[in-house]
Amino acid sequence: MNAYESLQQRSREIALYNSAASALTWDLEIYMPPKAGPYRAEQLSQLAGLAHRLGTASEVGGWIKQCEDKLPACADEEETALRAANVREWRRDYDRATKLPQRLVEDLAKTTSLAREAWVQARRESNFAAFAPWLEKILSLVREQAQSWGYADCAYDALLEGYEPGVRVADLVPVFADLQKQLSPLLPQLEKITAAVDSALIEGDYPVAGQQALNRRVAEAMGFDFGAGRIDTTVHPFCTELGPHDCRLTTRYNERDFTGSLFGIMHEAGHGLYSQGLLPEHYGTPMGTYLSLGIHESQSRLWENQVGRSRTFWAHWYPVACEQFPGLAALPLDEFWLAVNRVKPSHIRVEADEATYNLHIILRFEIEQRLVSGALAVADLPAAWNARFEEIFQIPVPDDARGCLQDTHWAMGAIGYFPTYTLGTLNAAQLFSAALRQVPGLDADLQKAEYKRLLAWLQEKIHRPARRYSPAELMTLATGEPTRATYFMDYLKSKYGL
Amino acid sequence: MNAYESLQQRSREIALYNSAASALTWDLEIYMPPKAGPYRAEQLSQLAGLAHRLGTASEVGGWIKQCEDKLPACADEEETALRAANVREWRRDYDRATKLPQRLVEDLAKTTSLAREAWVQARRESNFAAFAPWLEKILSLVREQAQSWGYADCAYDALLEGYEPGVRVADLVPVFADLQKQLSPLLPQLEKITAAVDSALIEGDYPVAGQQALNRRVAEAMGFDFGAGRIDTTVHPFCTELGPHDCRLTTRYNERDFTGSLFGIMHEAGHGLYSQGLLPEHYGTPMGTYLSLGIHESQSRLWENQVGRSRTFWAHWYPVACEQFPGLAALPLDEFWLAVNRVKPSHIRVEADEATYNLHIILRFEIEQRLVSGALAVADLPAAWNARFEEIFQIPVPDDARGCLQDTHWAMGAIGYFPTYTLGTLNAAQLFSAALRQVPGLDADLQKAEYKRLLAWLQEKIHRPARRYSPAELMTLATGEPTRATYFMDYLKSKYGL
Repeated sequence: MNAYESLQQRSREIALYNSAASALTWDLEIYMPPKAGPYRAEQLSQLAGLAHRLGTASEVGGWIKQCEDKLPACADEEETALRAANVREWRRDYDRATKLPQRLVEDLAKTTSLAREAWVQARRESNFAAFAPWLEKILSLVREQAQSWGYADCAYDALLEGYEPGVRVADLVPVFADLQKQLSPLLPQLEKITAAVDSALIEGDYPVAGQQALNRRVAEAMGFDFGAGRIDTTVHPFCTELGPHDCRLTTRYNERDFTGSLFGIMHEAGHGLYSQGLLPEHYGTPMGTYLSLGIHESQSRLWENQVGRSRTFWAHWYPVACEQFPGLAALPLDEFWLAVNRVKPSHIRVEADEATYNLHIILRFEIEQRLVSGALAVADLPAAWNARFEEIFQIPVPDDARGCLQDTHWAMGAIGYFPTYTLGTLNAAQLFSAALRQVPGLDADLQKAEYKRLLAWLQEKIHRPARRYSPAELMTLATGEPTRATYFMDYLKSKYGL
Repeated sequence: MNAYESLQQRSREIALYNSAASALTWDLEIYMPPKAGPYRAEQLSQLAGLAHRLGTASEVGGWIKQCEDKLPACADEEETALRAANVREWRRDYDRATKLPQRLVEDLAKTTSLAREAWVQARRESNFAAFAPWLEKILSLVREQAQSWGYADCAYDALLEGYEPGVRVADLVPVFADLQKQLSPLLPQLEKITAAVDSALIEGDYPVAGQQALNRRVAEAMGFDFGAGRIDTTVHPFCTELGPHDCRLTTRYNERDFTGSLFGIMHEAGHGLYSQGLLPEHYGTPMGTYLSLGIHESQSRLWENQVGRSRTFWAHWYPVACEQFPGLAALPLDEFWLAVNRVKPSHIRVEADEATYNLHIILRFEIEQRLVSGALAVADLPAAWNARFEEIFQIPVPDDARGCLQDTHWAMGAIGYFPTYTLGTLNAAQLFSAALRQVPGLDADLQKAEYKRLLAWLQEKIHRPARRYSPAELMTLATGEPTRATYFMDYLKSKYGL
């Protein structure tokens, strides 16, 4: 076995243990009986430790070096390029994993596990003081992480790199500024247009079985392969990959409003189509792995928003939904469509509409940078959050539970994660716009609820390349330029006829 | 870490990988999408390989030897005895695992995997000739297994040892002969008594939700802890342990007859109570592991048959079932009870009643011994099976699918497994009889559907000892003598008033 083959084998071996851990996590979230928790945690930690040891072993560094010095010969040019990309990504993963001292890894794991519990309680009681020492400690640990990884401009860059390879604060700042500049003045208009309909009119009687049938029909129409995936019920919906032909979506049901579950399934199935679009023969190696969170999120948002919240989508699917839920027919399609596209400033990010959502991210991006650099002290966080929130949204923050304590990310040590949500939003609009330009007749397809060619375009441009290019390169190859705010703004304006 | 602690740690590490594999297998049987099969097989094989390597590593042999030479000191006498028992069992497992040449292990894994597919098809087409070469090959491999393990009297003993430690053909032959001698003449009477009621009268309308509610109530009454377990739906019901507080039962539902699922759940919950009764602090070591198949099966059968098929049980539960299924009340309790206790010779083992079931086992036990010794050639198996079946059951075998091709065990290389089913039946009757003698007022408890003290007795006598004693020792400690046929025969006679 040459060095490349050794890396390939090791990479697949690690993926196998990680995928077993994904299966255990899926079960934990959905079916596991409560008393099984502590042992499940042991299983996950032992599997993670095994995968980590296998990935950071010194022989791995040796194989990578050998491949960098001389990539084993291969007649096929395309195959050679793929191998070179695999080696580049193995190097990246290896360096990021081995640069962290073992003590720091353990300290982070332990701290975030305890911090999560503290955060749950602090949020319940809206008691920032109880969480503050944990955030302090987490910030000091992630700063140490950033130091270990190294960076040119600012520590935040090193964190961001973990979620969005190659993207830097200096890249995001102008894009986000442009977005905010265009979006803020538009919001009062969007709010006014969509306030024309009382969105409570959607409320009715939607039995779970009917929702499940509709969700499945829509996911199937999108192209989600139920021979290689399934949908289960959970409290916090997610999508997870248990293997090369095994993608699990989850959702929750509200029997008074079916739209939450349906848009949720379109979102998760968007993630799932990305997973199902990766080439199974590369499973377990970088060329069979998703690229970044901002790209993953672009797939979920494109299906949920550009497709699912469009007037075109509902022209086809509203009659189907009315067949499933006869009471719905009392609400005219146009009013229904406005109601599911309601724009309104609100306090909670995860409940925000697709337009105001991005301002929640911009707020967090600003604050995270200042927390990491030390420009903002943890003790001053609530005041800073509340002031800036009111400036942006024009509504006051009632308490920290609905303010700076609302998200779980910081308690998990996931700092630098938030911007990828808005990157996903912008990428989604940009990709959808490119697909409409590049795929002749796609518009007509969408009117017929025919999504095969849209999916094929996404598979070719986004899914199959996997980690071959950086996110900026991939966006450029697919759309002609890196991520910009324009396409999202155009999408919003055209959607609401502005 | 001393040698004992090293063994303990290694044993728990192996158990953790095995329990992860159990979770993957549970998912495979219940929820996994079809295309995920090949990768799941890879995951299971890699985890099994890892567990095998960790268990057969040379340092393990060294640690066992060190403990055998001098068990690390321990002040507590009970703890010392437990440690000695662990070391004895580690030695047993290590020797059985290391005595097999790697080539034989791989050959068996590959052969049985292919043989299973061949068997499925051969049974479907009732084509013994298509399965014969596989059985030939499997017999030659299990003979080689037996040679590697070693034996005193006959090769079959070495196979039996894998399912029922310490039990030999010479122990079983007289017990099974006694059983057959007493059972055969009784059968015509049992058939006549139970034929008084047409068992088709049970057929009615039993919605799945109602069956689930009843199953759960009964399992809860038995003492099954749903905080540490659950019930799912599957085609082939089973019970599996995913960790120290994680026991999963499965069942299937027939909306025309609720009794199959209910007795199935009582059976699986019987297994599950054994699993939940093992001491969690010993999880992953022999002192936290089930003893043998004959003991495991005694727990499932005791709850299904001695408890569940008794007149006393239904005196309490029939009104509950009638509340759940109002149509059922048209059938008087006595007739219902006779109908669920119908005795009648039939061709298929897994559909047999609790009395004739044992004759199916006796037939297989005889034939397996002759196949392994070579006294019976594979080519002559159908004729030998059919002749002996008709002798025992007084009905002819219509085809091999309902004859020697009906069971999956041989295709899996599980030869020597069948006798443990009847050992379980006999142990169940013997244990139940001992419990009634030893627990004052247990009879009254059972009439009130109060099972706490029965369960406590089983926990003390059977569950908590785990692998501390051999099956024969355990039965003797619990009931005063090793497994005998008498208690089961007494149980049958008293049940049917003979």
